[in-house]
Amino acid sequence: MELKNNLFSDTGWEIYENTLEPEKLINRGSIFMVGNGYLGYRGTFAEADKDEYQACIVSDTYDKADDKWRELCNVPNGLQVKFSLDNELFSNYEAELNNYQRKIDFKKGIFSYKSEANIAGQNINLSVERFSSYENKHLLVQRHIIEFTEEADFSLELAIEGELWSLNGDHFKDYQPGVMDEGELKFSTTTQEREIAIEVIQDYQLNQKPQAEKIITKERKVAKELTYQVTAGDKLVLDLFTTIYTSNDLANPKKAALDLNRRAQKKGFQTLKTEQVKSWAELWDKFDIKITGDLEAQALLRFNIFHNIIATPVHSERLPIGARGLSCQAYQGAAFWDQEIFNLPMFLYSWPEVAKNILLYRYHTLPAAREKAERLGFKGAYYAWISGKTGEELCPDFFFEDVLTGRKIRNHFNDWQIHVSPDIAYTVWKYYQVTGDWDFIVDYGAEIIFSVARFLYSRAYYNPGEERYEFLKLLGPDEYHENVDNNYFTNYQAKHVLDKACKLYQRLEEENLEQLTELKNKISLSSEEVETWAEMADKIYLFQPDPESKLIPQFAGYFALEDVIPEVLEERLQDPREYWGWPIGVAVHTQVIKQADLIQLFVLHDDFREEVIKANYDYYEPRTEHGSSLSPSAYALIACKIGYQEQAYKNFLKSCSVDLYSTNKAISGGTFIGGIHTAACGAAWQMIVQGFAGFKYQDRQIIFDPLLPEKWQAVEFNLVVKGNKFKVKLTKNDLNIRAEQSNKSPQDFAVFANEFSLAPGDHRRVNL
Amino acid sequence: MELKNNLFSDTGWEIYENTLEPEKLINRGSIFMVGNGYLGYRGTFAEADKDEYQACIVSDTYDKADDKWRELCNVPNGLQVKFSLDNELFSNYEAELNNYQRKIDFKKGIFSYKSEANIAGQNINLSVERFSSYENKHLLVQRHIIEFTEEADFSLELAIEGELWSLNGDHFKDYQPGVMDEGELKFSTTTQEREIAIEVIQDYQLNQKPQAEKIITKERKVAKELTYQVTAGDKLVLDLFTTIYTSNDLANPKKAALDLNRRAQKKGFQTLKTEQVKSWAELWDKFDIKITGDLEAQALLRFNIFHNIIATPVHSERLPIGARGLSCQAYQGAAFWDQEIFNLPMFLYSWPEVAKNILLYRYHTLPAAREKAERLGFKGAYYAWISGKTGEELCPDFFFEDVLTGRKIRNHFNDWQIHVSPDIAYTVWKYYQVTGDWDFIVDYGAEIIFSVARFLYSRAYYNPGEERYEFLKLLGPDEYHENVDNNYFTNYQAKHVLDKACKLYQRLEEENLEQLTELKNKISLSSEEVETWAEMADKIYLFQPDPESKLIPQFAGYFALEDVIPEVLEERLQDPREYWGWPIGVAVHTQVIKQADLIQLFVLHDDFREEVIKANYDYYEPRTEHGSSLSPSAYALIACKIGYQEQAYKNFLKSCSVDLYSTNKAISGGTFIGGIHTAACGAAWQMIVQGFAGFKYQDRQIIFDPLLPEKWQAVEFNLVVKGNKFKVKLTKNDLNIRAEQSNKSPQDFAVFANEFSLAPGDHRRVNL
Repeated sequence: MELKNNLFSDTGWEIYENTLEPEKLINRGSIFMVGNGYLGYRGTFAEADKDEYQACIVSDTYDKADDKWRELCNVPNGLQVKFSLDNELFSNYEAELNNYQRKIDFKKGIFSYKSEANIAGQNINLSVERFSSYENKHLLVQRHIIEFTEEADFSLELAIEGELWSLNGDHFKDYQPGVMDEGELKFSTTTQEREIAIEVIQDYQLNQKPQAEKIITKERKVAKELTYQVTAGDKLVLDLFTTIYTSNDLANPKKAALDLNRRAQKKGFQTLKTEQVKSWAELWDKFDIKITGDLEAQALLRFNIFHNIIATPVHSERLPIGARGLSCQAYQGAAFWDQEIFNLPMFLYSWPEVAKNILLYRYHTLPAAREKAERLGFKGAYYAWISGKTGEELCPDFFFEDVLTGRKIRNHFNDWQIHVSPDIAYTVWKYYQVTGDWDFIVDYGAEIIFSVARFLYSRAYYNPGEERYEFLKLLGPDEYHENVDNNYFTNYQAKHVLDKACKLYQRLEEENLEQLTELKNKISLSSEEVETWAEMADKIYLFQPDPESKLIPQFAGYFALEDVIPEVLEERLQDPREYWGWPIGVAVHTQVIKQADLIQLFVLHDDFREEVIKANYDYYEPRTEHGSSLSPSAYALIACKIGYQEQAYKNFLKSCSVDLYSTNKAISGGTFIGGIHTAACGAAWQMIVQGFAGFKYQDRQIIFDPLLPEKWQAVEFNLVVKGNKFKVKLTKNDLNIRAEQSNKSPQDFAVFANEFSLAPGDHRRVNL
Repeated sequence: MELKNNLFSDTGWEIYENTLEPEKLINRGSIFMVGNGYLGYRGTFAEADKDEYQACIVSDTYDKADDKWRELCNVPNGLQVKFSLDNELFSNYEAELNNYQRKIDFKKGIFSYKSEANIAGQNINLSVERFSSYENKHLLVQRHIIEFTEEADFSLELAIEGELWSLNGDHFKDYQPGVMDEGELKFSTTTQEREIAIEVIQDYQLNQKPQAEKIITKERKVAKELTYQVTAGDKLVLDLFTTIYTSNDLANPKKAALDLNRRAQKKGFQTLKTEQVKSWAELWDKFDIKITGDLEAQALLRFNIFHNIIATPVHSERLPIGARGLSCQAYQGAAFWDQEIFNLPMFLYSWPEVAKNILLYRYHTLPAAREKAERLGFKGAYYAWISGKTGEELCPDFFFEDVLTGRKIRNHFNDWQIHVSPDIAYTVWKYYQVTGDWDFIVDYGAEIIFSVARFLYSRAYYNPGEERYEFLKLLGPDEYHENVDNNYFTNYQAKHVLDKACKLYQRLEEENLEQLTELKNKISLSSEEVETWAEMADKIYLFQPDPESKLIPQFAGYFALEDVIPEVLEERLQDPREYWGWPIGVAVHTQVIKQADLIQLFVLHDDFREEVIKANYDYYEPRTEHGSSLSPSAYALIACKIGYQEQAYKNFLKSCSVDLYSTNKAISGGTFIGGIHTAACGAAWQMIVQGFAGFKYQDRQIIFDPLLPEKWQAVEFNLVVKGNKFKVKLTKNDLNIRAEQSNKSPQDFAVFANEFSLAPGDHRRVNL
């Protein structure tokens, strides 16, 4: 079926296009990408150059060049294949294509395209398959099959291309393309700033020997030119094996890349493909959600889950999940609060070891968070708004630009948007609640939570007249309003963390005194300091919902701003590329917000009365521009909570299609922000499980409060809580839960009025 | 001698121009104006219309029209005289003029112009004199003398013109031009918003009866047309008497205007002029400063003193001194901190009753200051940034506009520039110190100081980690940097006021317990609250000078900003009219400041070591754009203090010539800010007495520490301290002080090492 915008899915396990639209270069390159958390290879054609936004983004290659922004590198392209027939160079964009299709197969993690192409007056059948091995993350594999219908001169160029698309400067300072002893092509280069060695090795297998083979070496390219005389019925099968290592991976990346390349060739394409299918079967066993009755939703959902998987560096506890994953260099390959609040929950309830990895990354970046706090005059840990490998602040002072004047805008994402710290601490505690992994808290989590509490206390001010603690000069999640006071989201999260810090301290005193003493020495913590946190938690300023309207202001003075809706502001734009926010954007002095702010808080905490949630949803929803991909999911989740079935479904589709239907801006305020919105990908899982199925884990009970969209017949997914795994199937009429035989303990459940416990192997059906 | 820019002075008592430059319409209208604190009449020609920026601005006529800014009204022009010869209408800008001169005579308070004009092929001698009576502030007098050299048809039109220049909207809602019983012209109108009745009455005296007289009435005009057959040698003398009252002055303004007009006519032009000369002789006896050896400085100085006098509503304790006086509607005819810090000192030491009046105005506007504080969530008295009659905040949220985009800028003058409140309280205390008027403190001043202290405490935050009180989100005097924390000027002024509040409370407890009790009841003040002020005064955050460089940051983080000088920023402008400040002006992220900020503090407090003053002067001076007319005087004053003779003189001339040489912008960020810079006018007096003469009153001693500019031979002025009057003459070699015979008590002095006391009638000469 066609989904929308020339995108199709037949089984919900794949998405493909049938026609090629040159104007969608950026978008289609992103949505057809493959990856494995170590690298991402965009879904471009094998012949693509930088002009087609080809990219192979490798994690852990942060580099700052030409005095621009630090970002991940797009490494030399080891999968480039160009060919020509009778001296006519083939290009998908220029040839006449019949039966064209470009596809990403989520189930197998394989990208492919095919067509009957007319070139040099004759027809060829072309099909290409590509995957980045999940089993071995340094390996890219690509197979070309070309069938000829006439006699012709045929020439193939297999290259490692070093002329690359890069957002912020040229990241490599010496280029060493060349050939290895046994004929493999290699490309060695070094990053500008930190001198990370990058090694790309390419070799091939062909079913038919070429008449001639020639090496071409240029300053930034090495290639093999293979020439053939082909005849009608010839079928060429070319398998390309490309391996990539950097000196951040291990000491001798060249040797590693070469060894892996040779091992891969020994296995050959088919074996590698079988391994890949197996890897992805295992992944889907963890993460898949099956929807019956809505193919579009099914395809969209798997697209998002797929991307949340391939963005996540499960192989490392020292790397972040990029806000655009590894789909391009935008947002600097770095983590935002998105990582904990959007990407992580899917892992937490499906593969908790990875959730732990993600939080360990935050543990390892504590030193940088402390440095940032100190630099800005605070104590404790103030996490970077844009956090790369080390956790140092990557967010530049001047982020967007005023497109009307060309002047850079001093956005205060890096010094006023403090909520990232409590968001991380919140998630550490959440991780413990769901996994029961107290050791993690003792060994790592406590230090994070205490350091964040210390930061929060040092960032807050006491208002002696009003006898309350306040946060001033904030940006909440809604980034259009900078410099606000007492953003409710931030204050609430801060209170939560301070409470948990005190509770945690008490429990450590009772149960882990030795480790606590060690930690207290390490970070110079005293019980007096913990008392100040308790006082602050007690006296932090939180607006009370208005007794009549039940409304809570997003920040102090919000309701006094001009009350308009986004559509009105659109008319005030002088240029469609204008940034709407601080300091002079059209939204600044209005109640129009970029994204869910207060509403996102309702997603994180179950402490609000339904009338309050409803009133605020009704108020904020029409005033939300959804200028962030993080926005619709919160509205979907809360719509489920308050029974707004249609709104929930509408926002679910909106959130899941941000990238597929390309509804978000690729450029804002002059800055490229295209690529895959991984937070929305992570949120897709949440919208099903925590939204439509109404799952929550509370007071050791698993609770379901479902509200399925009209046309869905069933939803099936797995859940891991406290190390126990459950299979859940929800229909219009009933909820079926099966506890795995291998579970270690019984689990309590509550579904509406039904409370029950499931022992390992047990199964329960609840009528709805 | 020519001063500069076609401005001349022969005696230092006048300034005149010899040629007419149409492009200087706005500037020349301002600098040749007359006024008396009740009204200001611009120095335009008698025939001028709105296109020539004619205006008669009347105090206490605040009105808001067409949803724009509230401002003083330009009332119907009762001095308009047009004439024609042989049907050719005369205009100074169109006729050929010989021996032209336009002059303001400071000594007499009289404006005049004259010329031999060629019109309709013949020459006439024209001379016009105009003054606004200082004796009776509702009266304007204007004499025309016209001598004819040939026979001609001559017609005169004497009008009250109601088509008027107005910055912000049409302020009148009904126009009633007409004729009174006895033939006087009258123009009644009512303001839009507050329905203030405005009454203008005009009548004339002529030495020669016209052949015919005709009344012309239009919707917004009433006029008399007088026609003559003139012959060679005829000399026409026309005296115009115009009176103005509003319903804010008294209950029946029309009757009052008519009565006064008739009384004035009875006296006749010559008597009124004699009265005017006498009034001004008395004024100059109070305020004059005589400089020997520098005619330019002398003329500039008297120009400034003259304007500080005519801007000041000495007749009322309920009206502010406008930042542009009554020279036009700019800055809404309202008071800023300028009033206390710049305008008032001249009065304080010369005519202290007027200084008291000015402070009483602040007492009467306490209710509005309390209202503003409450509206913004604070306690106590937060004085308006732009303060009109009532003291309500006149400063609009959107003040300037971004000329590049046409968007209004949300400047935070009205909610973050809090230093106006402590500046007023500082001046109240200063008034007491200089006058010894304790009754004023008991009756009025204490309430101001306590209310400001209360506000300051409620606006401050306590930083518990650092154990200090801080002010966040400020604008200091330097308005290019909004949203700064702990602006040193503001924090220092606040500490000063809190200290004085505590001291004052203690003394009232000891000496005026009854009145204190009454006041405490009135404003619900407790001794516990006073203790919180003491604690805040003790713990308020004040940067310490750097031990090495002695530098003090203007605000937190100032030194981290880009370090450039104003000239560099000029090159970054995309439009010369751009506003340099918040939020996206070229200065915002740099160390370039609009005006003296920290340096101004050194003017107000004598607590800083010379090495600190010097280091900071050296640092801040080159980084100051002097985009405010308030800036050069502070640098002049401090240059005197640290012995920078040339810089002092340079800045003195700069400050005194802001209007004469028209160095400041008439329009910034799209807003008209032309007119007379009255703060600079007030500062002129300070620069001589407190700067070059080095006068200060400290610990009951009058101290002089003089530093005369190179070419000055002598400076002479009077001083009033504690009700005693002294005549001071300073030369290069000596200082002569004479105590008036009528003084009530002896006064202690200190000049370098000489300490002495002068009894009434005593005189002392000190060698320098």
